[in-house]
Amino acid sequence: MNRQSIPKATLGRLPQYLQYLRNLSEERNAMISAAAIARGLQLGEVQVRKDLASVSGAGKPKVGYERIALIKALEECLGYDKVTNAVLVGAGKLGRALLDYEGFEEFGVKIVAGFDCNASNLQSGKKDILPLDKLVPYCVENDIKLGVITVGQDAAQEVCDRLIENGITAIWNFAPCTLDVPAGVFLKQENLALSLAFLNNKLRA
Amino acid sequence: MNRQSIPKATLGRLPQYLQYLRNLSEERNAMISAAAIARGLQLGEVQVRKDLASVSGAGKPKVGYERIALIKALEECLGYDKVTNAVLVGAGKLGRALLDYEGFEEFGVKIVAGFDCNASNLQSGKKDILPLDKLVPYCVENDIKLGVITVGQDAAQEVCDRLIENGITAIWNFAPCTLDVPAGVFLKQENLALSLAFLNNKLRA
Repeated sequence: MNRQSIPKATLGRLPQYLQYLRNLSEERNAMISAAAIARGLQLGEVQVRKDLASVSGAGKPKVGYERIALIKALEECLGYDKVTNAVLVGAGKLGRALLDYEGFEEFGVKIVAGFDCNASNLQSGKKDILPLDKLVPYCVENDIKLGVITVGQDAAQEVCDRLIENGITAIWNFAPCTLDVPAGVFLKQENLALSLAFLNNKLRA
Repeated sequence: MNRQSIPKATLGRLPQYLQYLRNLSEERNAMISAAAIARGLQLGEVQVRKDLASVSGAGKPKVGYERIALIKALEECLGYDKVTNAVLVGAGKLGRALLDYEGFEEFGVKIVAGFDCNASNLQSGKKDILPLDKLVPYCVENDIKLGVITVGQDAAQEVCDRLIENGITAIWNFAPCTLDVPAGVFLKQENLALSLAFLNNKLRA
């Protein structure tokens, strides 16, 4: 399947389909219909059919899609059969929680090491936490393309710049501040406090 | 200021303005222009002027807004002068990281206690972690309206149902699954793995 030909909006929904299909109990769902997927994800049925057609062709009339085959097709299309290695900078509580979380590998990303200015005092359950002066050589040697930033907002831009100088082209930022990145670098801003602010707004509306 | 009259999209952006203004260094920015705010947040200048007009009136020509007064106006408008109490269920690593994070209070939410089926073995740095059978009486006694779910996906719907039965009307879900909530309950789904999948997609495009 040529993913260049898949619309961007469709591509953005594919991980959701994948997650949904993986979470279904195996025995009960050898086959699954577009209608059931649409209900499960609160999407329109026409959209589901269109999205999945671009990945695996049409389902069989009246029975739908073979679940396992559809999962494989989605994984291949998303490139999750090959894992992207990532580093994390800032091994505070949130950083260590992300380091030890294994669910990211199912989506094709593995956080292989954490870095912290206070590395000698820190331990993650499963992964190395290294001192900050090892960051640059590590990224270069291991051809790292993705960096996760979980330092405080004062240090975030400096860490971001250093990652980008050393070949990182995608940044996942948890620091509560806006980062400047040059063209060609992808930035995903995660702002947990704003999510909570959103809910609080709703409660007070 | 009557927040009922503020458009929903504007309301959604207000926490970002607040965060941005708070992060500016105090001495340098007694006054701030709409143009500077627009640049900092990568928004259009016209939009910034319109949004802020609904909160605090227009800025002064050529000089802009008084930073401290604008922060106060935003906080009042968003109701952050009164804090909403929240509980968290599932005190694993991510749960404990959220429990100890203090940045939420700046946005009007305080996670006051955590609950876990394995509470006796867990310790958070700053807040109580209580056994799960204390959840219902705690929510009722403390008039809790917001619940944070950081349990695994197998337990998430059950926890969600229990919270809603006991008066919670806003749910912040970190479990990687879609939750069913009745009409009138606000749900904010946080899916960290999907964020990472998004970046990975970009890298492979």
